Amino acid sequence: MVDPRISVIGERLKGIGRIVAVSSGKGGVGKSLVASTLALALVKEGYKVGLFDLDFTSPSTHIILDIKEAKPKEDKGIVPPRIHGLEYMSIIHYSGEDVAPLRGIDVSNVLIELLSITRWSKLDFLVLDMPPGISDATLDLIRLIKRIEFLMVTTSSQLAFETLRKLASLLDSLKVHVIGVVENMKMTESKAIKQQVERLNVRFLGEIPFDSRLEEAIGSADKLSGTVFARKVQKIASKIQPR
Amino acid sequence: MVDPRISVIGERLKGIGRIVAVSSGKGGVGKSLVASTLALALVKEGYKVGLFDLDFTSPSTHIILDIKEAKPKEDKGIVPPRIHGLEYMSIIHYSGEDVAPLRGIDVSNVLIELLSITRWSKLDFLVLDMPPGISDATLDLIRLIKRIEFLMVTTSSQLAFETLRKLASLLDSLKVHVIGVVENMKMTESKAIKQQVERLNVRFLGEIPFDSRLEEAIGSADKLSGTVFARKVQKIASKIQPR
Repeated sequence: MVDPRISVIGERLKGIGRIVAVSSGKGGVGKSLVASTLALALVKEGYKVGLFDLDFTSPSTHIILDIKEAKPKEDKGIVPPRIHGLEYMSIIHYSGEDVAPLRGIDVSNVLIELLSITRWSKLDFLVLDMPPGISDATLDLIRLIKRIEFLMVTTSSQLAFETLRKLASLLDSLKVHVIGVVENMKMTESKAIKQQVERLNVRFLGEIPFDSRLEEAIGSADKLSGTVFARKVQKIASKIQPR
Repeated sequence: MVDPRISVIGERLKGIGRIVAVSSGKGGVGKSLVASTLALALVKEGYKVGLFDLDFTSPSTHIILDIKEAKPKEDKGIVPPRIHGLEYMSIIHYSGEDVAPLRGIDVSNVLIELLSITRWSKLDFLVLDMPPGISDATLDLIRLIKRIEFLMVTTSSQLAFETLRKLASLLDSLKVHVIGVVENMKMTESKAIKQQVERLNVRFLGEIPFDSRLEEAIGSADKLSGTVFARKVQKIASKIQPR
């Protein structure tokens, strides 16, 4: 039997222009920081934006943007709180800060539940902070969200890039649209990653230098917006057109 | 029905002194580099050592140590190849370099299969490169390997540490032994992580400074052994006693 909630998901996401899944081949490349900052940058560009933290392995956008207190309201579904100019939703609204080792099947179930109950406004962009790599949750989200598009983050490390290559290959075989790749925490002038991305026939969206002052901006959306990191993300945001 | 392979796993691991699961709360903290280098360091200390890459999300020890060519032999099970003085086994011997998005239940199945067919020699240490965070695979491995002990890796970032705190809390509730915590890629003199680790009643095993030359050592066990990173890991290895 088909889960009746699945047909509801398309309905819930109907009013959203583009759904941008910020993803990576592996953890630790700055995916959540890019997702959070990209959402803020799109707000600055004048768009209506939502941010949805779907990283079950280590949800962190609520820490980055300090939105622990904001709670969704129940009203014929769940209405995400509005904070820092964006609509915000996270798995932690349900799991809390507790240890939540969800099994594969539970993850699917929670994903379907969250997607089918959340009532976003009419948005230009919904930014998803994805689980890292090719997990069950990644596959579920591709299946559940028909118009999902990927923005992939890597560091300059060849180890990180090899995992991105696998993700790109999967997305290609599933015919999922890829917006492009961002090279994060860059410490040298090397063009190696840019060239390898272009060889995959994927757009290279830009590089972000390693910013040693970024750590102290975590936990404050205002401080974050003032970093070199945020300026670079703003440039990337300006390359992403609304539908 | 209980999977008959599960009872075989205990038998297969009987001749191993200590099983050290190198783990982290999130990806990208250098877990695989610590696991690979720790295995080499324990060999240098004069021990018999195995390294088992169980990181399904992004297996990378074979890239770090350049052991793509070494293949296990079939002989009443699978005999791991010996390379750089250690016995080596990885999921990639089976999945290859292809895209392998394993679903939760398949991961369990592959884990059980690999653990039940691999014939390790009598070893002092078996080092496991674990999947990052609290995943199905982490839970399975805790269930399947009775004598598993955890060595956790974090960076100095509070985001990474918060995910480690969750993992530590899970291990505590499951009564799994924790050897200690390593603080990796350290760029400042701050004692914040050390203090927080000690407040968890967990041993702080040491810190490893950020080593900008580490990237170029990836792919060569010899080069890796010559890095500042490896010297620090050697000090940590000397603190881990055989059974």
